[in-house]
Amino acid sequence: MKESKQTKGEQTRQRIIAAAASLFNRHGYQGGSLQDLMKATGLEKGGIYRHFSSKEELAALAFDHAWHEAVEARQQKMDIIGNNVEKLKQLITNFVEKRPSIPGGCPLLNTAVDADDGNALLREHARKALKGWRHRIESMIADGIKAGEIRRDVDGRRLSNLIIASLEGALMIARLERNQQALHDAEEHLHRYIEAEVRKSVSF
Amino acid sequence: MKESKQTKGEQTRQRIIAAAASLFNRHGYQGGSLQDLMKATGLEKGGIYRHFSSKEELAALAFDHAWHEAVEARQQKMDIIGNNVEKLKQLITNFVEKRPSIPGGCPLLNTAVDADDGNALLREHARKALKGWRHRIESMIADGIKAGEIRRDVDGRRLSNLIIASLEGALMIARLERNQQALHDAEEHLHRYIEAEVRKSVSF
Repeated sequence: MKESKQTKGEQTRQRIIAAAASLFNRHGYQGGSLQDLMKATGLEKGGIYRHFSSKEELAALAFDHAWHEAVEARQQKMDIIGNNVEKLKQLITNFVEKRPSIPGGCPLLNTAVDADDGNALLREHARKALKGWRHRIESMIADGIKAGEIRRDVDGRRLSNLIIASLEGALMIARLERNQQALHDAEEHLHRYIEAEVRKSVSF
Repeated sequence: MKESKQTKGEQTRQRIIAAAASLFNRHGYQGGSLQDLMKATGLEKGGIYRHFSSKEELAALAFDHAWHEAVEARQQKMDIIGNNVEKLKQLITNFVEKRPSIPGGCPLLNTAVDADDGNALLREHARKALKGWRHRIESMIADGIKAGEIRRDVDGRRLSNLIIASLEGALMIARLERNQQALHDAEEHLHRYIEAEVRKSVSF
């Protein structure tokens, strides 16, 4: 009996986090409105906050949820690709083409600007998300070097920073202009760069 | 007499805009606090808003002010450079090295995320700022092609999108990580790209 109660509490908690992710990713993780969250969940203030130690914790968990959805969207088709050069290219295409299920754009871009001052916990979660993303790209590069697919002189940190910065910056432009041109420009540049400077040419 | 009164009114207006730019660029153009602005200017609410037709107008003008300062910082040393390839490289280095006098990071990055929904006037001002920035870069490229410094097949829109996206995205990373690494990575990549793919090689 107690266990099923806990489960229900946990379910409510997850439901609040999902609703907060959807709201905060559109309207800001800092200034997310409690009124809107009450409306979205059908819960009172007390019913919301008894599941979290603070407003800051809810914002940080909502970010994690939105980020998880973004990562899922950007991981599509990756598992079926063996070659690490093709994986890098697919990751770039996914960023440009796949929209995460949580509206409001990239949670990382939203939070980097939002959490610059203020919520230190949120900043920490965003920093970890960025680190994890870069780590995944760096692993692909390291695997690709080992497999003889990627040139030995490719610097993992530099290339992953280049990919992340180009895509996030292009997303910023796309949001302001409300069209995808800058994202497609970034995709094309990165794909060409990877073919020219990253892929190991096969010599016979 | 009337003229000097007008001038004083205009001075007050400019003082409010400058104070708002400094506050909003750090804490958001949407949710900028009136209390803080009253404190910074020493004026009451009525004394502030009688100079503007709306809160939205003040936010948009504060953005323009912050953007103007950012452009100034990024234009340093540009006039004394004749060659357009060197100009492009200096513009990139300025973005990485020169901090605008208004604190809080790039106004465009802040606003692109902030004004996504909400203040349509602010969004319009940010969109124009981006357009102006790209136009300046495209002009350098066009001038460089005419002068025989830049390859004829360089696409102005693509290269300017690439430069802006790489720098703004790197700035996002730098803000999250509180170090300049990603910005230096972007600078190095862009400089190398410009030397390899943009600068016209001289043939004898």
